[in-house]
Amino acid sequence: MAQNIYDDPDFFRGYSTLPRQILGLAGAPEWPAIERLMPALAGKRVIDLGCGFGWVSRWMREQGAASVLGIDLSENMLRRARADTVDTAITYRIADLETLDLPEAAFDFAYSALTFHYIANFARLMQVIHRALTPGAGFVFTIEHPIYMAADHPGWMADLDGRKIWPVNGYAMEGERRTNWFAEGVIKYHRTMATTLNAVIGAGFVIERLDEFAPSDRQIAEMPELAEERERPMLLLVRARRDP
Amino acid sequence: MAQNIYDDPDFFRGYSTLPRQILGLAGAPEWPAIERLMPALAGKRVIDLGCGFGWVSRWMREQGAASVLGIDLSENMLRRARADTVDTAITYRIADLETLDLPEAAFDFAYSALTFHYIANFARLMQVIHRALTPGAGFVFTIEHPIYMAADHPGWMADLDGRKIWPVNGYAMEGERRTNWFAEGVIKYHRTMATTLNAVIGAGFVIERLDEFAPSDRQIAEMPELAEERERPMLLLVRARRDP
Repeated sequence: MAQNIYDDPDFFRGYSTLPRQILGLAGAPEWPAIERLMPALAGKRVIDLGCGFGWVSRWMREQGAASVLGIDLSENMLRRARADTVDTAITYRIADLETLDLPEAAFDFAYSALTFHYIANFARLMQVIHRALTPGAGFVFTIEHPIYMAADHPGWMADLDGRKIWPVNGYAMEGERRTNWFAEGVIKYHRTMATTLNAVIGAGFVIERLDEFAPSDRQIAEMPELAEERERPMLLLVRARRDP
Repeated sequence: MAQNIYDDPDFFRGYSTLPRQILGLAGAPEWPAIERLMPALAGKRVIDLGCGFGWVSRWMREQGAASVLGIDLSENMLRRARADTVDTAITYRIADLETLDLPEAAFDFAYSALTFHYIANFARLMQVIHRALTPGAGFVFTIEHPIYMAADHPGWMADLDGRKIWPVNGYAMEGERRTNWFAEGVIKYHRTMATTLNAVIGAGFVIERLDEFAPSDRQIAEMPELAEERERPMLLLVRARRDP
């Protein structure tokens, strides 16, 4: 089963202080780029894989989704998601995406944010999602970018001019990466860009659009520390479609 | 028009000493990965964009292609391609891919190796190739990887353990990159992975498979200096298909 770091009390306390957990979508600088990838949701049955506090689950209902099923591994996350949600067309369920099973053709759109890099068996999960979607259904997900995750020591360095560089090594060596992020030994799984997208295609999806999130001039004016996200790709956003 | 560095005498002299120019396909470590992406070629009319000395043009005829049109900007390259080719079903033509025009639906397969990163207007070129292909036709190309090209100073550095790292900066800042490679001021164009693949999709292709070339154990045993290509992605290989 996937590591359930979100139910580690220290991790959860730290994680809950992130702007995106306090402000919701307004605290996630990549949200405008995600929103541009989103299809019309009116009347659609939607699944939100790794829904966390349910910010996007609720947003999708506001866009007219008929129903939203939010899935997460963490009791902490879902307790707050339930407390923050009054809409009865949104349901939350605890499940491990490593072993998840879903009914066939039960959803018209699948969404996942910053979750799949915790999953060891990504190809299996793509097949499960593909089977759970109706023909032609959309699928939008975000992950930490493979270039952000690959290195032994993923932290800024400086080049000979003193300009920031992001270090890359071990890129072709896929598998577990342990980092310290609000807790020691948070486990993520590095896969190359090719492995990631080939798994999506191999499950029967068509890649429709990619985005690697870079902040706009306006975002940098409002939050100058975001400028460093033009130096490296930190996030990968994918819009795909289930074959008809 | 694209910079014609291959007709610079110093560049051409240096470039001609590369193993891949002396040994042909056997001197290109990524060739086995390219070969795995290649479709059956028997009876197909093929175009080879940036054909250089014609190594792959000749290989495609050996695989049964009905005809091959090799295109290159460099007179030096095509002079040797013609001298090395006796097969009259292969023709070579000088043209600039920045302004190339091709007849509609004239080819059943398009190939290009390590050429498109010299092209400023990549989206236009994708449209030209799409229009020149028959419905359902295959398209395989390789480019220098965006991660390899992005940085101000694209050269190995060391991390705090002394392990090699490849530096990345300026990733989201697309456009011209000048490097010194056999000559001063060789001009390439950096585009992100997303921009590259979105241009392919936007022209009407379906992405079928990606590869970022990493050497096999056997390749490293035969040529230990290749091991560093597991640390960084140096090449991007794409197999796409024109929509039917």
